[in-house]
Amino acid sequence: MLAHVPDHVHELPTPALVVEREALEGNLAAMSAALPGARLRPHVKAHKTTALAELQAGAGHLNFTCATPLEMEGMARAGLGDDLLLANEVVDDDRLSRLARLDGRVTIAVDSDATIDAAARNGIREVIIDVNVGLPRCGCDPGDAGRLADVARTRGLAVRGVMGYEGHAVGVEDRPTRVEQTATAMEALVKAHADVGGDLVSAGGTGTFDINTWATEIQAGSYLLMDAAYDKLSMPFRPALSIVATVISVSPGWAVADCGLKALGMDHGNPNVAGGTVWYCSDEHVVFSPDAEPLDVGDRVRVFPAHIDPTIAYHERMHIVDGDRVVDTYAVDLRGW
Amino acid sequence: MLAHVPDHVHELPTPALVVEREALEGNLAAMSAALPGARLRPHVKAHKTTALAELQAGAGHLNFTCATPLEMEGMARAGLGDDLLLANEVVDDDRLSRLARLDGRVTIAVDSDATIDAAARNGIREVIIDVNVGLPRCGCDPGDAGRLADVARTRGLAVRGVMGYEGHAVGVEDRPTRVEQTATAMEALVKAHADVGGDLVSAGGTGTFDINTWATEIQAGSYLLMDAAYDKLSMPFRPALSIVATVISVSPGWAVADCGLKALGMDHGNPNVAGGTVWYCSDEHVVFSPDAEPLDVGDRVRVFPAHIDPTIAYHERMHIVDGDRVVDTYAVDLRGW
Repeated sequence: MLAHVPDHVHELPTPALVVEREALEGNLAAMSAALPGARLRPHVKAHKTTALAELQAGAGHLNFTCATPLEMEGMARAGLGDDLLLANEVVDDDRLSRLARLDGRVTIAVDSDATIDAAARNGIREVIIDVNVGLPRCGCDPGDAGRLADVARTRGLAVRGVMGYEGHAVGVEDRPTRVEQTATAMEALVKAHADVGGDLVSAGGTGTFDINTWATEIQAGSYLLMDAAYDKLSMPFRPALSIVATVISVSPGWAVADCGLKALGMDHGNPNVAGGTVWYCSDEHVVFSPDAEPLDVGDRVRVFPAHIDPTIAYHERMHIVDGDRVVDTYAVDLRGW
Repeated sequence: MLAHVPDHVHELPTPALVVEREALEGNLAAMSAALPGARLRPHVKAHKTTALAELQAGAGHLNFTCATPLEMEGMARAGLGDDLLLANEVVDDDRLSRLARLDGRVTIAVDSDATIDAAARNGIREVIIDVNVGLPRCGCDPGDAGRLADVARTRGLAVRGVMGYEGHAVGVEDRPTRVEQTATAMEALVKAHADVGGDLVSAGGTGTFDINTWATEIQAGSYLLMDAAYDKLSMPFRPALSIVATVISVSPGWAVADCGLKALGMDHGNPNVAGGTVWYCSDEHVVFSPDAEPLDVGDRVRVFPAHIDPTIAYHERMHIVDGDRVVDTYAVDLRGW
């Protein structure tokens, strides 16, 4: 870890994850205006950072969504455990019994008899029925949701409602198509909800935050730092995250900066380098051709990852910056499982 | 961290990085027979784990290659600092001056006046001239190597020789082409060495370990755990690493296991799942269709990442296993920069 965090961006050891304060605060304000309080259940998997979750809580969102048991435990430990939803299935006895003992309100997604059994036998008190609304991933058949809710109640579990992620719709560029796909997905979820009961209809993501009016709460996470892929959808959120890298080698026609595969989520492809065209990445390098003026060794460049969530998971810390000033440094403290 | 590591693979919390002991030991033995002692300078970037480096030292390889300052520091701290080569350019004053103070022998790659200046002004004593032998990345023009060596010596630095990575050749499937490309690259490096002097001609990788006879030492790393991409080259090394994942959801036609984008280096594409066909990965999920029998929730599957180095960098620990038995657990202690 850093013994001392420099005061300026140009002094940060690289690669350094940086978040523009103005964009961060703008995104926070835009979302809390659109979906105030409990209308948003921010997804912490997008940033894995309790300090950012604290900002979201400060903006009025006290209920959170998590993707892993470790995220749940870290949030509770950070005092953010008012209402934590694990929007993912778990059958691990040790982890479930630890979750059952957390200082906070814990709700777990279930989509099968096996996951209900795992929750019940490990002392979990509240569950939500995870329904497949069109994305082939987790979630029960909508027609089976009512039966699963009955099974859960028989096992002594409180059923808080349904969740269903329209992940196939959130990234669709054409808005009318996105609206239509969301409607179809949510009609299935609302129908399942009628069979299940409970207060919650939990769904949605950044791409459908202002479209999904069927859900009682939206599980958006990416809005806070904004992913490049979402940036095409003309939303009121701005990209806030980039990586500062140092040029370590310059050759005629290309330059190399110290931000490679171990600093970047690569599933959406190569990052962009401001002022350059990326050729390829290797373990610790991004190789690119500068667009205009040649660079010098020691120059700094900004690298924009193609996918933010798995990028952040490689980094121990992120710096909140305002121009060249480092205004805060947060530990990425929810990494792992 | 795990309070207690289970004795059996089927009890490990997932996703869990596991290394087959037999394959690991076989790879270690095959390489130390082919390139004994100082003929191999193992690259620790491949595993970022001092416990694996200790096994390599135990097999006779006492000199190591690193890609980041943090790897250098961790290796020295672990008592593996006999002869550490940072095969990468660094201009960060703090890091270079920390490297200069390490308890061990430290050599740094330089490929420009600026990197020589950075090494000299921060107390580094020994450098190696990094030469571009055909891969567009770091490395000076071969014709400039002699001049840079003179500059380094003028600045009081000892010049240990040259290094040049034939990264464009190591993965070529057709062996005669691989041999030819290696020869061309190494002729350039040997010529540069004549201008530079020093004892070291450091080059090569797993794909050219038995081809590159020009180098005095080979910087191979992947051989120990073996990457899927190398597996096509018919080498005496076997894939040793996989990820144990738990099936958390089963639907008609597909299943979901808990090994997603934050557990996998994705730059080479999707992983393979033993006994299944992968559809896609999301943050914490791999979605796949089982090839034969349907799976049950709670079943375990093995996931084989497409690229090992950036996969390991996501994990805090790896388990050495023998069948279902966990025989050792190592911290992946060289992550970060």
